[in-house]
Amino acid sequence: MSTPALENLVARLNRLPGIGIKTAQRLAYHILSLPEEEVAGLASAMTEAKQRIRYCPVCGNFTEDELCSVCADLKRDRSVVCVVKDARDVSYMERMREYRGLYHVLGGTLSPMDGIGPDDIRIKELMDRVKTGEIGEVILATNPDVEGEATAAYIAKQLKPLGVRTTRIAHGIPIGGNLEYVDEITLFKAIENRRDV
Amino acid sequence: MSTPALENLVARLNRLPGIGIKTAQRLAYHILSLPEEEVAGLASAMTEAKQRIRYCPVCGNFTEDELCSVCADLKRDRSVVCVVKDARDVSYMERMREYRGLYHVLGGTLSPMDGIGPDDIRIKELMDRVKTGEIGEVILATNPDVEGEATAAYIAKQLKPLGVRTTRIAHGIPIGGNLEYVDEITLFKAIENRRDV
Repeated sequence: MSTPALENLVARLNRLPGIGIKTAQRLAYHILSLPEEEVAGLASAMTEAKQRIRYCPVCGNFTEDELCSVCADLKRDRSVVCVVKDARDVSYMERMREYRGLYHVLGGTLSPMDGIGPDDIRIKELMDRVKTGEIGEVILATNPDVEGEATAAYIAKQLKPLGVRTTRIAHGIPIGGNLEYVDEITLFKAIENRRDV
Repeated sequence: MSTPALENLVARLNRLPGIGIKTAQRLAYHILSLPEEEVAGLASAMTEAKQRIRYCPVCGNFTEDELCSVCADLKRDRSVVCVVKDARDVSYMERMREYRGLYHVLGGTLSPMDGIGPDDIRIKELMDRVKTGEIGEVILATNPDVEGEATAAYIAKQLKPLGVRTTRIAHGIPIGGNLEYVDEITLFKAIENRRDV
């Protein structure tokens, strides 16, 4: 009993992750209630973001310019490269405001089950960056899941002959966490990676 | 450390109801990962819905044609009119698939606090429809909240001199509900409106 344009809008919104049918309907009704300029603004924000945003040719981060804002920043420490899975991980790292090195976005993690091998993610590009001799340390910051660990281990092995310092981000109890709610594997990692005080 | 187009998209998505900053970011990254046609499809679904959908001149329901699908359906019972607050309420009623009469969308409820009086919602249009003499019953289906009850009471009073049968949808324990979890006011209404069995 809805109209075709409304049904199409609800169906399109429903395809977005985490947007169920009820939320899609609520959003569609809200969009109909907005002024036309506001709807046009939202629609063009989507198409413009998709058209303008590309990947930085050096590190693979999102950019609208030649180089991304991190690679273009001459005050960053060019001797350290932090390796992450996705371009969005760069903004998660940047939120911390402490890391002053560069990044290398892999664009995925090794996953033989999904047919993703070393040639499908930007590992060769990382090796080429390291081979320039300008990089002193590679920090492996892939997620601590099966694929992320396997990818970190694979890259560490590839980097070994190049003699560059290779580190992995620490895993343990999150700050503000509680032993009661921490899973066994994290607890095991926290004990294994204990430090002298 | 994000790009201007990405920040604009996140800000626009964040303005939608129930979409917090984290969800807006997640949706924005998802939109960037979609094929360009898919993003264009979502964007145009929004602008087209906004441009094409108007209100039915008879009942106030959403329509893309001259009349809405309910008013244009000659098999509907034209002697019964169900009064609802918003156009979206029509689709909630239609989900039931049992009601075969027409609708009248008020486009709001009386709310002196927000400066919404009888002339700001489609009450006069309802009176004009009733005055044609074709309507035998008006069902008041505004929500059972303060504004909805006040609006229903006001309309009932206005309809009285016209001699049309005026009814209010029943309030009580929802089917599948449980006395333990039903609030006191609903329970009071359920006792007050008890029926002989």
